[in-house]
Formats: sequence, C-alpha cells, structure tokens
Amino acid sequence: MSNLERVLAHVDDQLDASLERLFALLRIPSVSTDPAYAEYCRAAAQHLAGDLRGIGFDADLRQTPGHPVVVAEANGGRGPSVLFYGHYDVQPVDPLDLWETPPFEPSVKTLADGRKVIAARGACDDKGQVMTFVEACRAYRSVTGKLPLPITMMIEGEEECGSKNLFPFVRDNAAAFRRDLALVCDTGMWSQDTPAITTSLRGLLYEEVKVRCADRDLHSGLYGGAAQNPIRVLAKIIAALHDADGRVTVPDFYDGVHELPPDIAADLAALNLTAEEFLGPIGLRIPAGEKGRSIIEQISTRPTCDPNGIVGGYTGEGSKTVIASEASAKISFRLVGDQNPEKIRASFRDFVRARVPADCSVTFLDHASSPAIQLAYDNPALVKARAALGAEWGKKAVAVGSGGSIPIVGDFKRVLGMDSLLVGFGLEDDRVHSPNEKYDLTSFHKGIRSWVRILDALAQ
Amino acid sequence: MSNLERVLAHVDDQLDASLERLFALLRIPSVSTDPAYAEYCRAAAQHLAGDLRGIGFDADLRQTPGHPVVVAEANGGRGPSVLFYGHYDVQPVDPLDLWETPPFEPSVKTLADGRKVIAARGACDDKGQVMTFVEACRAYRSVTGKLPLPITMMIEGEEECGSKNLFPFVRDNAAAFRRDLALVCDTGMWSQDTPAITTSLRGLLYEEVKVRCADRDLHSGLYGGAAQNPIRVLAKIIAALHDADGRVTVPDFYDGVHELPPDIAADLAALNLTAEEFLGPIGLRIPAGEKGRSIIEQISTRPTCDPNGIVGGYTGEGSKTVIASEASAKISFRLVGDQNPEKIRASFRDFVRARVPADCSVTFLDHASSPAIQLAYDNPALVKARAALGAEWGKKAVAVGSGGSIPIVGDFKRVLGMDSLLVGFGLEDDRVHSPNEKYDLTSFHKGIRSWVRILDALAQ
Repeated sequence: MSNLERVLAHVDDQLDASLERLFALLRIPSVSTDPAYAEYCRAAAQHLAGDLRGIGFDADLRQTPGHPVVVAEANGGRGPSVLFYGHYDVQPVDPLDLWETPPFEPSVKTLADGRKVIAARGACDDKGQVMTFVEACRAYRSVTGKLPLPITMMIEGEEECGSKNLFPFVRDNAAAFRRDLALVCDTGMWSQDTPAITTSLRGLLYEEVKVRCADRDLHSGLYGGAAQNPIRVLAKIIAALHDADGRVTVPDFYDGVHELPPDIAADLAALNLTAEEFLGPIGLRIPAGEKGRSIIEQISTRPTCDPNGIVGGYTGEGSKTVIASEASAKISFRLVGDQNPEKIRASFRDFVRARVPADCSVTFLDHASSPAIQLAYDNPALVKARAALGAEWGKKAVAVGSGGSIPIVGDFKRVLGMDSLLVGFGLEDDRVHSPNEKYDLTSFHKGIRSWVRILDALAQ
Repeated sequence: MSNLERVLAHVDDQLDASLERLFALLRIPSVSTDPAYAEYCRAAAQHLAGDLRGIGFDADLRQTPGHPVVVAEANGGRGPSVLFYGHYDVQPVDPLDLWETPPFEPSVKTLADGRKVIAARGACDDKGQVMTFVEACRAYRSVTGKLPLPITMMIEGEEECGSKNLFPFVRDNAAAFRRDLALVCDTGMWSQDTPAITTSLRGLLYEEVKVRCADRDLHSGLYGGAAQNPIRVLAKIIAALHDADGRVTVPDFYDGVHELPPDIAADLAALNLTAEEFLGPIGLRIPAGEKGRSIIEQISTRPTCDPNGIVGGYTGEGSKTVIASEASAKISFRLVGDQNPEKIRASFRDFVRARVPADCSVTFLDHASSPAIQLAYDNPALVKARAALGAEWGKKAVAVGSGGSIPIVGDFKRVLGMDSLLVGFGLEDDRVHSPNEKYDLTSFHKGIRSWVRILDALAQ
C-alpha cells in the first residue's frame, strides 16, 4: 500500500472525528460584518490556530484594524511551497425564522434525494471548505509523520465584509507570503459528480459616462427637433457597442483574447450546458452574447460589455415634455486573457468621444480596472491537480472560467507574483449567504481525500 | 377719411386712457394657483365684466369649480361671428426681491435701448394682450357706434394653473360657444418689427416603454454575456428611431406631413434664423434635427421624436455590477399636419416589439395623444388678418408654427369645430412667468390698432 493509499484510508477511518472538528468550528458564530460578534470572530481564529498547532503548524493570530488573520506555517517535503487561503468568518443569518435548524447548531441531515448534508451557517462558505484542507494536512501528517510540502495558511476573518484589511496586510507582508503557488478553496464543483478547477477569473473595467448637451433642461415642444438630446446620444453610443453578432465594437477590444486550447474547449463542450438549463431559472431562454460561442464561453471565457445603469430626463410617474440637459450611464466590461484594461479604457473613451456631437460634452468616471486572471492551461500544478481530482472522483476534472472576480487572487498575482489554483467542492444548491446553508457530506469527505491527492501530486 | 382711419386715429388719441384701464386691471393680483388670491381673481373677473358692459357687451361671470369665466357677448355687423379667448389670471410673483418695481404697481419704464415698456405681472401674459382686443372693440364702437362683427369673449381665470375647469365648461356649453372663428391672443410677434400669426401647433404622442428581460436583477460577472440586458435593448430601440439624416424611422410616420406652400416656405427662409441665434443661448450650436431642414422648420413645422426620460439598473453613486431585470423610457413625438397619433402609436409599438428579443417582454403606457392643429394657409380669415397686420406694421406678417401646443385651441377645433386665429404681440424678452415681466408700449398701442384692422378686415 502506498503512502497515498494509507493516508486516504485514514481519512475514511477518521471521518466522524473530522466531522466533529468541523462542527466545533461551525458552532462559533463568527459573523464578521456585525460588531456584536467581534469576540466570536476572534474565538474562531483562536480555535483554528490552536487546532493547527496541534498538527505541527507554527500558528498565530496577526492583528489588523479589523478581525485577526490566522497565519500558520509548517515545513514539509521538497516543495513546491504553497500558500493556502480561506476565511473563517461567515455571513449574517437573517432571516432567522427561515432556518429549519439553528444556524450555529450544525447537524447532518438527509435530503429528499438521499444526499446527506451538513447544515449550518458556514458549512460550505467557507469553514467546510477550509476544513477539507486542514483535515487533509492532519491525515497526511498523522500517517506519514510530515506534510508532503511546505505549507503556509492565511485564513482571514473579513471575506464576507470586503476583505478591506487583508489587502494592505498582504501588501505590507509581501515578502513573508511569497510562495510558489497559492491554493484557494472558495469555489465549487461543476456538478455533484464532476470536479472542477477554476482556471480563470474575468477582469473588470467599469466606467461612468455623462453626456451633457444644452446648459439647461428644455421644453420639448419649443426646442424639440433642433436641440440635441443627451439620451439619444447615449443610446446611440450604447447601441453601437455591439455589432450584429454580439461582438464588442470598441477598437482593439479583443487584443489579448485567446482561443481556448482544443482539449479545454472540447471538455467544456462535453459539459453540454444548454440555454434552457442556464437561462431558464432566470426567466430567459436565448443566449444574448457572441454568436457562435457556447453559453459556457459567453459567461466565463469571453469578454463582455454591459450597461449596468442609465438615467436621464424625467423618470417619475406620468409625463413631462422635457429634453434633458444631461444623461449618464454606467458601463462595464468583463475582461479575459491578456486584455489590458487601461488600453481598453482609452479606446472606449475615444469611441465615446467620437460619438458625442461637437457642441455637447462628455465626462468619465473610473470605477474599476483590473485585468483577468488566467492560469496557463499547461501549468504543471494545474495538470497534476486535475489528474488528482480525476482519480478521486472517477471523472475528468474540468478547467472552468469564473465570470466574476475574486479580488485576493488578483492581489496574489500582482503583489506576490503567484498563481492560484482554485479548487473547491461547493455545489449550486449550497445556499451560501442564505438560510439553510449546507455542504454535502460527500463534498466534505471526498474534498479531504481530494486535497490529500493534490498535495501528494504537487510534491511529486 | 374711412371708418377704419377714424377708428385708428381714435386709438392714438385715447392711448393714455387705454393704458390707464390696463393699469387698473394689472393692479389686481389675480394669481390663480394660490388659494389666498381667490378673491382677487374674482375681483379681476368682475372688473373685466363691468368694463365690457360699459362698451355694450352683455357680460357676466360663469361659475366653475374654480375661478369664474368672464363671458361677454355683443352683436355687430354681418359677420363672421368670432369667439375671443384670453385669460385674466397671472403667474405667482416669487421671487419678489428680484422685481425692480412691485409686480402689481404697473408703470411705464424706458429700457436701455430706448424702448418704452409696461412693467407689471401680467403686463404681457395675458392682461396686456387681452386689453389690446378690448380697447380695439371700445374704439370701434366709440367711433362707429357698433362692432364690425358679432363678438363673444371667453376670458378664463385658470390658464396659469392648467385650465382644468375650462375644458369641461366648453364641452358642457358647446352649442353656446360655437362661432365661425376663434381669435386667440396669447402668442407673440416674430421680432420687434415683424408681426406673426401662429398657424400651426404641433400635436403630441407620448409613450412610456418598459422592457423586461430576466425575472430578477443579475450579477454581471456570473450572467454577463449570456443574459439579455434591457438597457441594451432599449438603447438599440432609441438609437434606431432616427436614421443618419435625423429622420424618424417608425414606418409610415411621415404620412400626413405636408411640405409648406412655396410662399410660406420662402417667408420662413427670409427670416434667416441661424443656429447661433436659436441654439447659442442654451449652449448649443449644431441643429440636431432633420438634415436639409432649417431651424425654423425643425422646431415648428416638422415632426420630431425625443426620449424625455430613461432609467434602468443602478443609478446611485459608485458602481454596482448588475444586469437589471428591466429598464424604461418615456418617448414622445411632436406631430404636424395630418399625422394620425393613433396610427403612429400602433406603428411605434410594432417598431418596438420587433426589436425586443423573443424571451423578453415590453409594456406600454399611453401618456398623451393629440393631433396637430393646422390652419389652412389659404384660410380667408388668415389671409385677411395677415394683410391687416402687414398694413399696420409695414412688414409682411409671417405665418409661423409653434413647436408646442395650446390645449384650448385643440378643444375649439375638436369640440366646437372651429378654427383659431392666433395673433399676439408678445416679444421674446417679455419675461413672462419671471420677475420683471413687461409688455412693450408699442406692442400695446399697435396691438390695439392691429385688432382694429383685423376686425375691420374680417367684416369685409
């Protein structure tokens, strides 16, 4: 029996104990956004640090202007060195009366379809996911006497309220946290039986555009026809942002957008996500993005442009015959690959200016600008982790893109120069942030086993 | 010396007395919108009725749920019979501290350019204009012993607060007010030395359009690309409403729009209104309407389409990465000639529906629908009145269109089947509705003389 096989068997043997340790953490109501729970946040951090010391980590609490960060470090095999990121804080539990069992009294329940689930606030997000990793370390060390590679953990307490103290903490301690690779456990499976690694996060460029025409609001009867209307100007700009095939028309927008490698594209195609499955639940059925791109591509690996808000003129009840002096829109772009947000911002602003009549004016506000995160599909750690997940779940692990962003992953890349491997075992129906949050017992059990396999594989 | 010449000479002789009678009316603070002034409104009505009785009219006050309407009637020559409309109420005077002299203490002042003006609230709008007509009647009767034609006057007291009681009053007494022609004295000159008759008023079609896509607001990271965005849908609709030449693209929109007769078009062209003159004061300089049409045409004799308001998604400070579930716009059309508002409404709604994706929905709200008013350019009364004005002012009277509407004129046409001749002597700089309202002494004096000539001409 190999080391790996023995560790996995140990995980199976010890599942009840692992579960009890997760329950102990879940019982601490570490709601970060509410000052009334500050002591519980500290208690959760202390609990975690104590637990990690028990399995050989040098662990302590680092103070921030907010809740402390648990930092733990332990030597291990040759490497590579990894930085594990997670968070011990949880979302508020309101409305409390919608919970079937109290949010901080964890229990195992059986769903109608037979699945066993751990029910509690934080069961998935993120205590359950964090503990899959901690239990994997514990099992590995327990069986082999040491970790397979050097591991640093950074487990924060403010993810659910914006991580605003974590970013300066990481920047101020950049040298101390620079590792070969980050492991981030805050994502999900593709489905109950298909594991996934999130290999890309879309970037964001967010601009506000204000068009000003006449220097006052005008009577549409007296001026209508001759006076420029800023709503018309803005509507024409927004309408011009996409061509008939749904492609963004801002010049050079697609610079740095790469086609997927054929094998990755084939994997995504094989998932066969239909418009009905994805759009049906929100009352839609026709994909609105680039023609010739699958739903999965449209929402994750292709860049987009969306107006997020628009306002101008009279918007109250009834009617007013006014030509507004100004109108404004908030317009954002989701970026992928190597798209350069600053170049796109400049090109977008030129695009807009070219469409504003010479006697009108336009001003811009910059609300966000971050490039996409993209792990190379041939990154050796990714290749090993996919194989490890595939072995555990008996099904190929898909490399998926996330449509949104996880800001700390951007900082790991930009500040620490470190790629992140995003692996998690959450499911669509986990109700994170809602009443009756749960985490499948299978996610927890096979999650622990998955991390054992991944750590073992990375050490090879 | 003809009758006409003797009456005009009498007007000149009696100008001081005419002015004193106007002052007496101006001293009554008949602010209609403020209930505190209700007694003054009644006093103004009684004053007018008494004055009209003094020159042979059968005059009394007709009660309404609001301020009374002065109705006066007198026989005269063969005809045609005319209904004169004006109003005795005035706008509020706030802010009072901006008035150079008290608003209800009329006086004659001399402007920097030498013009003598009557300064008071209501000097132009509409007491001064009403009194040009009353004084013309007085002079004609005084010199000739009778009016040149049968005259009915309807002088209301709620024009400045929406005339909401006048419309039912006219409808309820339709038979009593049906005459050959209405004379409306609430408009202006083209310029200080060029008289004008308003021969058209644009109609109005006002629609609200609400586009709904997903059944909830969406995260733009998770759904951006695949989910339809109602702001995009609406922007494309608004952008499609005009072609590159500024023409409205709604099918059959221009049905019923007639080209101006060549002589009228030539008159308007000769006025040579420049973009600088018209748009400069509001901070613009480039006409935004139909290419190949003059500014005057764009604002008065051509139909238009303008979005009057738009709102959707996040419109507060900062940014929110949301794809809204719905967005709405208020869109209005100014109509001319024989454009049919109901046909255009139907065509517009089809135009919109054709541009809403099949999995999204659209709803409409109807806020207004009234056809344009157009006096035939060869209407005999118009031809006579233009000649009369030309004789008085020594300059051809222009037939102009008004970009906005005067609702009572629409009711005269639709309810009483009566055309209106819109003649007035207001000027651009009269500051109606603002502090320091004035009426040029020339407007008052030559206005009286103009009505004498018009009444005399209509009687021929």
